[in-house]
Amino acid sequence: MTLPDTDKLVFYDIRNSVPGCAWSPNTWKTRLALNHKGIPYRTEWVEYPDIAPLLSAVKVEPNPPSSGPIPVQAYTLPAIYDPRTQKTIMDSYKIALYLDETYPDTPALLPPESRVFQTSFQHALGDVLHTRVVPLLLHQIAKPLNPRSRDYFIETREAFLGCKLEELSPPGSEKNAAQWVAMEKAFGVVASWIESAGDGRLLLSGGGPDGEDGKVTHADTDLAGVLIAMRVLLGVDSKEWERIEGFDGGRWKRYLTCFKFEK
Amino acid sequence: MTLPDTDKLVFYDIRNSVPGCAWSPNTWKTRLALNHKGIPYRTEWVEYPDIAPLLSAVKVEPNPPSSGPIPVQAYTLPAIYDPRTQKTIMDSYKIALYLDETYPDTPALLPPESRVFQTSFQHALGDVLHTRVVPLLLHQIAKPLNPRSRDYFIETREAFLGCKLEELSPPGSEKNAAQWVAMEKAFGVVASWIESAGDGRLLLSGGGPDGEDGKVTHADTDLAGVLIAMRVLLGVDSKEWERIEGFDGGRWKRYLTCFKFEK
Repeated sequence: MTLPDTDKLVFYDIRNSVPGCAWSPNTWKTRLALNHKGIPYRTEWVEYPDIAPLLSAVKVEPNPPSSGPIPVQAYTLPAIYDPRTQKTIMDSYKIALYLDETYPDTPALLPPESRVFQTSFQHALGDVLHTRVVPLLLHQIAKPLNPRSRDYFIETREAFLGCKLEELSPPGSEKNAAQWVAMEKAFGVVASWIESAGDGRLLLSGGGPDGEDGKVTHADTDLAGVLIAMRVLLGVDSKEWERIEGFDGGRWKRYLTCFKFEK
Repeated sequence: MTLPDTDKLVFYDIRNSVPGCAWSPNTWKTRLALNHKGIPYRTEWVEYPDIAPLLSAVKVEPNPPSSGPIPVQAYTLPAIYDPRTQKTIMDSYKIALYLDETYPDTPALLPPESRVFQTSFQHALGDVLHTRVVPLLLHQIAKPLNPRSRDYFIETREAFLGCKLEELSPPGSEKNAAQWVAMEKAFGVVASWIESAGDGRLLLSGGGPDGEDGKVTHADTDLAGVLIAMRVLLGVDSKEWERIEGFDGGRWKRYLTCFKFEK
């Protein structure tokens, strides 16, 4: 598709101080979805405190309260605006569903047979992996944000955590070392789910040991979003990212070769 | 298939004091699988302390340690013995995989595309639902067991619980009332996963609001197994079962119409 810039789908992502740097595990889900489907878009970068005014102004339905261990704000990114239908959609699952339905010629991320399983996968991944990644990542997220977003982020996150972000996982501490071990174990659990298929696949719904473009699902963008966010926030050349690339026999490094993303 | 009794697949289920009464949520998964596939079998009823000697004698690989919140014994039922291949298989997931592969003309419970999602569903269901059902059900399970099995069951379960089974959920207590509220909420979360498909389906992988025989998956037998076990252990005519049938607009009563089971 070639479209004038004004007709392109607008993808709202969260700005930080590095121009053009996409770093959020949640917005990466939709960025990967758009890349995978080949739908042209332009990114509109939004500061944290501007997300709620932006989305409530166009009467987007707010998020329901979280059923998982991590609370959810009423208005969150990713969101998209599609000039062709004049609709604004928030939440990566709803966006994937909208894109599947509105652009049926693009590869489906949420085929009807696996929709319920993909929703429950999101719960399982949140329970096993996100709860282990979040303590290690929150402080890394805050650092490169612009001052307005940083203040907002720190205030809202510390309110539910009941501690300072920098106390969550002080570098070099025993706590930090134990959190890394717990995170490695969590990745091992996710790897064991994938291995249960018994066919050496990389992607969740199949495609064999080399991946296969057509097999990417919304749930894959969920898992890949976490990995890419860590790669960006820890630094692609960091020892920490190198350590993650070594988890589970190099599975996650190979996994990321199945996705279209820029550094 | 019509086979002499000795050629039939042997299905090992856990005996209690009511002859022929299948009550275990775990063994129900395999019973439902065999019924759904139409594979003839005869049930061999086993007392709890006899499970490990039975399965270790034929060199079945023991269960790995649980990654979820509920510990798992090394040897568990369900298990099957297939006289045609002379193989003994333990664990409902492995049995479903074996049956899909060995009897490819029967409806598949674990199609390759959804295998990983079904494994992670098992984790998500365990986290959300089983943890809420177990405290309400353990004492009900112990009651009708034969003395040998009852002693074994109480001893092993109280060892990891750190309390008496009857203290878990005393009938009429505030604790019991709160556990029922938590369980209803947990069923609501599972219902919300199914509703996320947006097509009014009953079964996890589709089939619309009336269910559809061909759409039953291993994950469905997991969920249905819990429901059938509760129906048996609480009593089909009990107020407790009536209450569960009323959860989520009667969804679970309708859900059970998709399965072949006897009372």
